Amino acid sequence: MTGPEIDRLIQLLARLPGLGPRSARRAALFLLRRREALLVPLAQAMTDAAARVRACSVCGNYDTIDPCAICADPGRDPSIICVVEDVASLWALERSSAYRGRYHVLGGVLSAVDGIGPDDLNLPNLIRRAADPGVTEVILATGATVDGQTTAHYIADRLADCGVSVSGLGHGVPVGGELDYLDDGTIAAALHARRPV
Amino acid sequence: MTGPEIDRLIQLLARLPGLGPRSARRAALFLLRRREALLVPLAQAMTDAAARVRACSVCGNYDTIDPCAICADPGRDPSIICVVEDVASLWALERSSAYRGRYHVLGGVLSAVDGIGPDDLNLPNLIRRAADPGVTEVILATGATVDGQTTAHYIADRLADCGVSVSGLGHGVPVGGELDYLDDGTIAAALHARRPV
Repeated sequence: MTGPEIDRLIQLLARLPGLGPRSARRAALFLLRRREALLVPLAQAMTDAAARVRACSVCGNYDTIDPCAICADPGRDPSIICVVEDVASLWALERSSAYRGRYHVLGGVLSAVDGIGPDDLNLPNLIRRAADPGVTEVILATGATVDGQTTAHYIADRLADCGVSVSGLGHGVPVGGELDYLDDGTIAAALHARRPV
Repeated sequence: MTGPEIDRLIQLLARLPGLGPRSARRAALFLLRRREALLVPLAQAMTDAAARVRACSVCGNYDTIDPCAICADPGRDPSIICVVEDVASLWALERSSAYRGRYHVLGGVLSAVDGIGPDDLNLPNLIRRAADPGVTEVILATGATVDGQTTAHYIADRLADCGVSVSGLGHGVPVGGELDYLDDGTIAAALHARRPV
């Protein structure tokens, strides 16, 4: 139907999350119609990102410099490390602007189903960082899923001898959330975490 | 939050149809995690497509050769031209494997709302092709929308002096379609187009 160049473009686009074969065809045509405005710049942006973006050797964040801009920022508190599953979680925390410490990206969570054990995560680096006398607190910000919480407990055990205080994110009603739409577990957690007004 | 390279990648990805800011972030991280398996090949495929894929000077289809593979194929009937709105329609017809003639891509449809007039479409080439003595039929396969049908009628008028027979696609019940889910217009068209069993 189409030449091998277009077929290959469609096949690769179809592997992106959120795109299937049909929407990949649509995206390919969209790109071909906007050669100078979008296709060429996007190809260049991908080439640049592939060549220059690396995982930070300290925390695992993606950046073009190593250590990354967050690890290298003297304005950020080096005594707190926030442990996240992946860079998406790190970006979400950064968007909140509520955290001014450093991060540590695990690169996943322990999962019996997916066969992911402690050796598959970026844990030795975390233990080493937490053992630094300058670090006083580790915040475990893995997801509130079974695997995320299992991972948090495992890490808390491993950090027991490091002399740091270990905390987790608070559970409760999301800001702007209506009780009627919340699951029972969240409502129970919010009741448990109730506080004087 | 992220470096300028990653920000730019996300911004450009967010312009693809079907992706928004959030899914573009997800796609960017997905690509960065799969640098060798996906990011580099996709950047290369886009660069190749931008450099090599062109609109066919005869019919307007996208291909790396000009005339395109369909126009250059001696096995395809040169006496029939199927007029389509865009390359997506051409691909859809090709997937059906039901058509073995040539195509002509208009590059849009007449639209008073969008300010698209006859001069904005690839019409002069079509008139010239239809005037060729070797062409006997033009199939107007624009969409069954108001604009698509207006465009088809306009083209039929313009082709009146070319000595070709002009036809349009049949309307009726989609194969596999249930009557209960069809709109009134389609059911009326299907009744009108009834045929002996």
